[in-house]
Amino acid sequence: MKTRMEHDLLGERAVPEDAYYGIHTVRARENFWISGARLADYPDLVLALATIKQAAALANCELGVLDPGKCGAIVQACGEVLDGSLHEHFVVDMMQGGAGTSTNMNANEVIANRALELLGRPRGAYAWLHPNEDVNLSQSTNDVYPCALKLALHAAGLRLLDAFDALRAAIDAKAVEFAAVLKMGRTQLQDAVPMTLGQEFATYSVMLAADRAALLRALDRLCEISLGATAIGTGINSPPGYTRAVRRHLARLTGLPLRTAPDLVAATQDTDAFVELSAALKSCAIKLGKVCNDLRMLSSGPRAGFGEINLPPMQAGSSIMPGKVNPVIPEVVNQVAFEVIGNDLVVTQAAQAGQLQLNAFEPVIAFSLFKSLTHLRAACYTLETRCISGITANPEYLKSVVHGSIGLVTALNPYIGYARASAIAREAQVSGRGIAELVLQKGWLSQAQLDEILRPELLTRPPADLSEAAG
Amino acid sequence: MKTRMEHDLLGERAVPEDAYYGIHTVRARENFWISGARLADYPDLVLALATIKQAAALANCELGVLDPGKCGAIVQACGEVLDGSLHEHFVVDMMQGGAGTSTNMNANEVIANRALELLGRPRGAYAWLHPNEDVNLSQSTNDVYPCALKLALHAAGLRLLDAFDALRAAIDAKAVEFAAVLKMGRTQLQDAVPMTLGQEFATYSVMLAADRAALLRALDRLCEISLGATAIGTGINSPPGYTRAVRRHLARLTGLPLRTAPDLVAATQDTDAFVELSAALKSCAIKLGKVCNDLRMLSSGPRAGFGEINLPPMQAGSSIMPGKVNPVIPEVVNQVAFEVIGNDLVVTQAAQAGQLQLNAFEPVIAFSLFKSLTHLRAACYTLETRCISGITANPEYLKSVVHGSIGLVTALNPYIGYARASAIAREAQVSGRGIAELVLQKGWLSQAQLDEILRPELLTRPPADLSEAAG
Amino acid sequence: MKTRMEHDLLGERAVPEDAYYGIHTVRARENFWISGARLADYPDLVLALATIKQAAALANCELGVLDPGKCGAIVQACGEVLDGSLHEHFVVDMMQGGAGTSTNMNANEVIANRALELLGRPRGAYAWLHPNEDVNLSQSTNDVYPCALKLALHAAGLRLLDAFDALRAAIDAKAVEFAAVLKMGRTQLQDAVPMTLGQEFATYSVMLAADRAALLRALDRLCEISLGATAIGTGINSPPGYTRAVRRHLARLTGLPLRTAPDLVAATQDTDAFVELSAALKSCAIKLGKVCNDLRMLSSGPRAGFGEINLPPMQAGSSIMPGKVNPVIPEVVNQVAFEVIGNDLVVTQAAQAGQLQLNAFEPVIAFSLFKSLTHLRAACYTLETRCISGITANPEYLKSVVHGSIGLVTALNPYIGYARASAIAREAQVSGRGIAELVLQKGWLSQAQLDEILRPELLTRPPADLSEAAG
Amino acid sequence: MKTRMEHDLLGERAVPEDAYYGIHTVRARENFWISGARLADYPDLVLALATIKQAAALANCELGVLDPGKCGAIVQACGEVLDGSLHEHFVVDMMQGGAGTSTNMNANEVIANRALELLGRPRGAYAWLHPNEDVNLSQSTNDVYPCALKLALHAAGLRLLDAFDALRAAIDAKAVEFAAVLKMGRTQLQDAVPMTLGQEFATYSVMLAADRAALLRALDRLCEISLGATAIGTGINSPPGYTRAVRRHLARLTGLPLRTAPDLVAATQDTDAFVELSAALKSCAIKLGKVCNDLRMLSSGPRAGFGEINLPPMQAGSSIMPGKVNPVIPEVVNQVAFEVIGNDLVVTQAAQAGQLQLNAFEPVIAFSLFKSLTHLRAACYTLETRCISGITANPEYLKSVVHGSIGLVTALNPYIGYARASAIAREAQVSGRGIAELVLQKGWLSQAQLDEILRPELLTRPPADLSEAAG
Repeated sequence: MKTRMEHDLLGERAVPEDAYYGIHTVRARENFWISGARLADYPDLVLALATIKQAAALANCELGVLDPGKCGAIVQACGEVLDGSLHEHFVVDMMQGGAGTSTNMNANEVIANRALELLGRPRGAYAWLHPNEDVNLSQSTNDVYPCALKLALHAAGLRLLDAFDALRAAIDAKAVEFAAVLKMGRTQLQDAVPMTLGQEFATYSVMLAADRAALLRALDRLCEISLGATAIGTGINSPPGYTRAVRRHLARLTGLPLRTAPDLVAATQDTDAFVELSAALKSCAIKLGKVCNDLRMLSSGPRAGFGEINLPPMQAGSSIMPGKVNPVIPEVVNQVAFEVIGNDLVVTQAAQAGQLQLNAFEPVIAFSLFKSLTHLRAACYTLETRCISGITANPEYLKSVVHGSIGLVTALNPYIGYARASAIAREAQVSGRGIAELVLQKGWLSQAQLDEILRPELLTRPPADLSEAAG
Repeated sequence: MKTRMEHDLLGERAVPEDAYYGIHTVRARENFWISGARLADYPDLVLALATIKQAAALANCELGVLDPGKCGAIVQACGEVLDGSLHEHFVVDMMQGGAGTSTNMNANEVIANRALELLGRPRGAYAWLHPNEDVNLSQSTNDVYPCALKLALHAAGLRLLDAFDALRAAIDAKAVEFAAVLKMGRTQLQDAVPMTLGQEFATYSVMLAADRAALLRALDRLCEISLGATAIGTGINSPPGYTRAVRRHLARLTGLPLRTAPDLVAATQDTDAFVELSAALKSCAIKLGKVCNDLRMLSSGPRAGFGEINLPPMQAGSSIMPGKVNPVIPEVVNQVAFEVIGNDLVVTQAAQAGQLQLNAFEPVIAFSLFKSLTHLRAACYTLETRCISGITANPEYLKSVVHGSIGLVTALNPYIGYARASAIAREAQVSGRGIAELVLQKGWLSQAQLDEILRPELLTRPPADLSEAAG
Repeated sequence: MKTRMEHDLLGERAVPEDAYYGIHTVRARENFWISGARLADYPDLVLALATIKQAAALANCELGVLDPGKCGAIVQACGEVLDGSLHEHFVVDMMQGGAGTSTNMNANEVIANRALELLGRPRGAYAWLHPNEDVNLSQSTNDVYPCALKLALHAAGLRLLDAFDALRAAIDAKAVEFAAVLKMGRTQLQDAVPMTLGQEFATYSVMLAADRAALLRALDRLCEISLGATAIGTGINSPPGYTRAVRRHLARLTGLPLRTAPDLVAATQDTDAFVELSAALKSCAIKLGKVCNDLRMLSSGPRAGFGEINLPPMQAGSSIMPGKVNPVIPEVVNQVAFEVIGNDLVVTQAAQAGQLQLNAFEPVIAFSLFKSLTHLRAACYTLETRCISGITANPEYLKSVVHGSIGLVTALNPYIGYARASAIAREAQVSGRGIAELVLQKGWLSQAQLDEILRPELLTRPPADLSEAAG
Repeated sequence: MKTRMEHDLLGERAVPEDAYYGIHTVRARENFWISGARLADYPDLVLALATIKQAAALANCELGVLDPGKCGAIVQACGEVLDGSLHEHFVVDMMQGGAGTSTNMNANEVIANRALELLGRPRGAYAWLHPNEDVNLSQSTNDVYPCALKLALHAAGLRLLDAFDALRAAIDAKAVEFAAVLKMGRTQLQDAVPMTLGQEFATYSVMLAADRAALLRALDRLCEISLGATAIGTGINSPPGYTRAVRRHLARLTGLPLRTAPDLVAATQDTDAFVELSAALKSCAIKLGKVCNDLRMLSSGPRAGFGEINLPPMQAGSSIMPGKVNPVIPEVVNQVAFEVIGNDLVVTQAAQAGQLQLNAFEPVIAFSLFKSLTHLRAACYTLETRCISGITANPEYLKSVVHGSIGLVTALNPYIGYARASAIAREAQVSGRGIAELVLQKGWLSQAQLDEILRPELLTRPPADLSEAAG
């Protein structure tokens, strides 16, 4: 393998001649061989880095601290990264020490070396255009890395929102489909009072809507950046006007409503935007986990379970038990939920471990958030397309359970009182007989009264009444 | 002990004659003997229950389903609870099964028996006024209990906010006091570039401000209630108009901007408001933990540590080492932070474990949140009054470290370039000499240039520049 | 209130005249007002402290560094603490900074002042007998506090074991009672193959047995102590022979097989014994949580659920739904399980936060472990006495489900093959018909063959076969 | 792409003609598209599956339920998997629903199709040799999958032990190297009493030794398997003698001391072995995190920090600050520690979520454990080779700090008493003077006495005294 020599603070090292990255990246690859996940496996992050470097070059040029010729080359090199043609040169492990320095330097080096080529110079001829002095001009890892994470997480977050919305739409469709399916509601796994299966499904959508809102808020928070803060937030080495200029260029390039944090020293060490995003993802996970628990229970059976709904069969369920079909899709979503909650704990620990002017543990925060975002997205998509959409109900069975239930007695409270209702309930439970039958027998209510009181629409409250709730 | 007999679904039981509570509470005390923390130890919750019962009685009376005489007695009995004279009768364990039924029944029974007395009837004469049929009229534990938790958590949250604000004010005062104290900033525990101690303290306040906002948002969310939902959200047994009426009365009694959840079936099973509150508290804990880690490190010494600041000595630090004083206040705050993060995990698990139309695990959610709120409040107050306010700095030492630091070289980057700066840094590190001295010796900059470049105000960026950040 | 003056490193303070504690305790009470849980609320810990102080005095006297007269007074004062007559003077908050110094000093002061009285001197006359120089002689908080925690946790652990064993015995009794009750086993909530209800219960006991073993191992680990390490493990200020002597006395006084850690510097900073105990408790919690989830599901109904077993009714389940009875005991145990898992996270964080020669966060570790131990014990006791012992089964219903199940087809695999079995299973599912009926109809097996293959004893494997497993 | 048709319970599907896997795998790939991590990325698991299938075939043949010709083909096909030539056909996602059924079926299908080829039959000609009826004979996913996980985790665990031992050896070497380097010990970040740097390093090794023992115990626990349990532990469809035979063959093939769980119904649903392994890994993470926190603090500086030790410089530390070198290796290890603790929470949740006769969430348990094992191994190796081995000390500086310290006063306690020592300590702190100097001045001790008392070997306790500890 042909190589070129580069040197840094620690001495000289050979770099593969055809590599766009340089000595800092070589050292980082040797130092961090942990997760096997490379920067290139996170294209959102590569794109974010290139966009930031482009914006910085334009701002530096505009402020007169970067030569226009260099600026042009840098901008063009970044453009090639954005086109995807240089991704394979972003090789550092996502799990790295150094607070992201290796990621930033990998980007600086690739862009510098490609820019050198565009200027007709060989790779490594940093006297003509330097990764640190030119590509990284007016910047520090400590403002570039978190900004790149924010842009990349924002992109991944938008994709999650799409999957989330599709899932909610599928649930809403089922809520409409099952609007007239009467069933017993349950509290604490014990039969309670009647409701419709449509109400049960609608509930999931309503609860997920709150998470959507929290997620949107968290994404908006990612739009607060700290470019111009440089090393610790005092802006050392960035020229006057840079903060404003780079934000303007970056906002234009990304189309995002970016704003600069009001206190850059605080912003440099703060990981709160990541903590909030993780909390929003954890909240999604809690809900999805609950929904899947319910779906698995409602479809339990076929003969010794609840048997209320049928999940679409997706694969044979057993290598030994013929004919068995399992709720494999909710099961995998449950597992993603556990994982996202675990990731939140990683983020929590890393956030609390920040010291003084910087949090050195942002790489594992980013790594965890990307996993949560992508796995949750896959889980939502899978749940929507391979489970929810195909769910069917067993309305006749459900109705028969309601009519035979003891829980119906609650509806009689206002007419016969809690005490007599309790006695009837007990008698029904012991004898196995029905509530209506017993009430009739005792002569407490007439058949006509019972028919009116136990009308399904009344029991499950018509929409007209629901609107009153918001009053 | 004299007793009276009461009966319920399961049979008869003796109740102490002088107890305002009844048979349901007696059973609950026997069933739940777990934490030793009684309902009465959480006066916010007792008050919230009484207020809700008052509002419900007024709404029921207004809608014609509760006799005015009964209503008057109930309202008056609730008033006595609000005065604090009946707290000792709220005796159930905070850790309970049954989704809060025992808490709700304890309240129903105490209020009913006191109301009976006010009506000239003996305790237990439920034929005249019934805990379930009258005090609990139009209600279910499933709408009353979460509503009471929300009101009580709101009250505790407001008190936390007060302590939080006082803490931030103390930090802000130190930021002003230390505004001119020059020091080395650090990233990754390694010397970085200069800043002021004032900036360091201001940072803490800025970061805590984000938590304050999140906490306020979480408190606002607690104002969304589900009274009228009754058992599972279908409003069974609540008369038309009740939802609106009870909310109106309760809003007036509490002075809070209460609103009814738009979907009561969803609201009945949803614990998201608690999850969000817990996330906000966890975020506070992360920040407070970080601040206390910093304070302990910055005050490490007296001779073998950082020695930058001095925490006020609060007690002798050792039973064996004379003269030792330890950072005991930040240490206890760190521990509260760990606890709050642990509590968030309890809330997370309990929230995810909800099944179908109800989450039966709200008691442990409430128990955990109350602990987090009260311990965090105590921690903020303690940190403010027993630590932050008394912190002093060692400005001469801090200044001398800056002047002897290698990190100053960063400021020279724009004048001598990253490469030459790296070489100088290395030489300084090896030789133990100063940056300025070496640069002068090499003739790269003059003394006058150095004086200008290394002006503290410039290095730590004057306020005029900071305002640009927001641009 | 009459007071006496005491002084310390920080100056003078008034102490209530009738208090046995002194100035260090006064300051600690002012500094730590966090949890409201006082040392006296943890009698195991008070007793452990007194026993250690007794052993230390005896060792010091034996080695000639403590005057016999002082020793006698200290030993007698400790004896009074052990009798319980001085508990009210142990007043510091369990949540404290200072790595337990306040707890240790509270003990030193109470014992010193009581000893002074026994010597005919007034409280506070420390010239005659000093809390630090005499009661704490050859000791440091850093070896005394963790040792006291270990002894106290050991005592609490033994009580948990008792409750654990009683719970397992109750489960075992049910396993025997239900040994012949045939039912469908389920995997992934879908009907699988037959088993007995006795097997299902036996399982719980077997799984809890592993936790018992882990708990015992963790308790044994608590018997490794570090007395003699003093401040950081180098034994500074402890006389030659002390380590051995104090361990010998303490082992005799406690009856425990105490041993001294082989490396005292490591032992001083290590919290591994606490981490292991917490892991064992978490493992118990996982199992108990799983058992309670199962119990709640198996008893779901009464008419729209699994309806396999009946939990004993412990209280009316609803304030609105007459006749409803809920699984309140498993529900509260589930919540304790969540809490214990949360406590483990507190312990984990605190353990990882130790710095250099000491872990300053042992108080919150202890606080969390005591909560886990006592709540788990209460949960085990409650589950045993108020739930497991009263469970009944519905054997006729269970048997009918087995006979109507599709899962029976698995037993036919060896006779008709997986492929034909799958086809039959599908046909049964679609048509609602029985497996045996279909197989007979197709003539694949005779009635006699079916009777033999589907014999319950064969399906659920007789004990003779089980013993083979261990082969 | 050419395909062949296969069918299952749900109908027909095309399978790529050159795929060894079949219809079940095709469906699983469509269903689970979550993590991107394929079974083939976990070669330990592929090998474990093949070994189990080999052992099962041999046992089945021996017991006369599998034709010798089929057995031979299956054994040979498994051998090819073990050679690594078929790994690319193990394609299902590691994150899957179905409790591992897809993983087991993927293995069954690949082995069956390769065996068919060896028998001269085309792929898919299952009438001649069937994935379920022959390869999976006497097995269920529910006994095969956990057994395969255990074997694979055992292999990964042994590799972690190797890295762990190498790390401990490197630490031990430093403990020897620094045995005579005197330094101040610290408690609560405040100067305490002297010790040696060698003692400080030895501590790390001692603490990690406890984790090694726990890890070994957890690995041993993985040797308890449940083959023969089949679907739910009742052994349905496995012939008499199978449990013993398959264990014997598997023990021989793996060389591991395998044993069969005494209760197979319990073993089928129990995940305790995984929970214990995770707890052991978490404990390692806690320790490694603590060690790395210490290393970063002790090497803080170069001029404004502790400056006690020097970590080997591994890469330039900053893209903006010339000459800065950061503790990048400990930083990445800290992040792995956070991740492992997060993974433990995933395992905890999944373990508690098991229901009735099976835990459907073993895939995420396995996924998390494999990540923890491999990342921890990488972290240990990296810490050993890129940090610990190259650490140097600054002995002159360390010694000077000891001699100027106030903490020395503790050693004078036995000679001048705690009270006078406290006064001296305070005077030294205020005046900035030395302890020895002040004591001499006051005439409390002579120079000769001080020299003797403050001898470093005495202060840091010689090995002879340490051995006493074990007494």
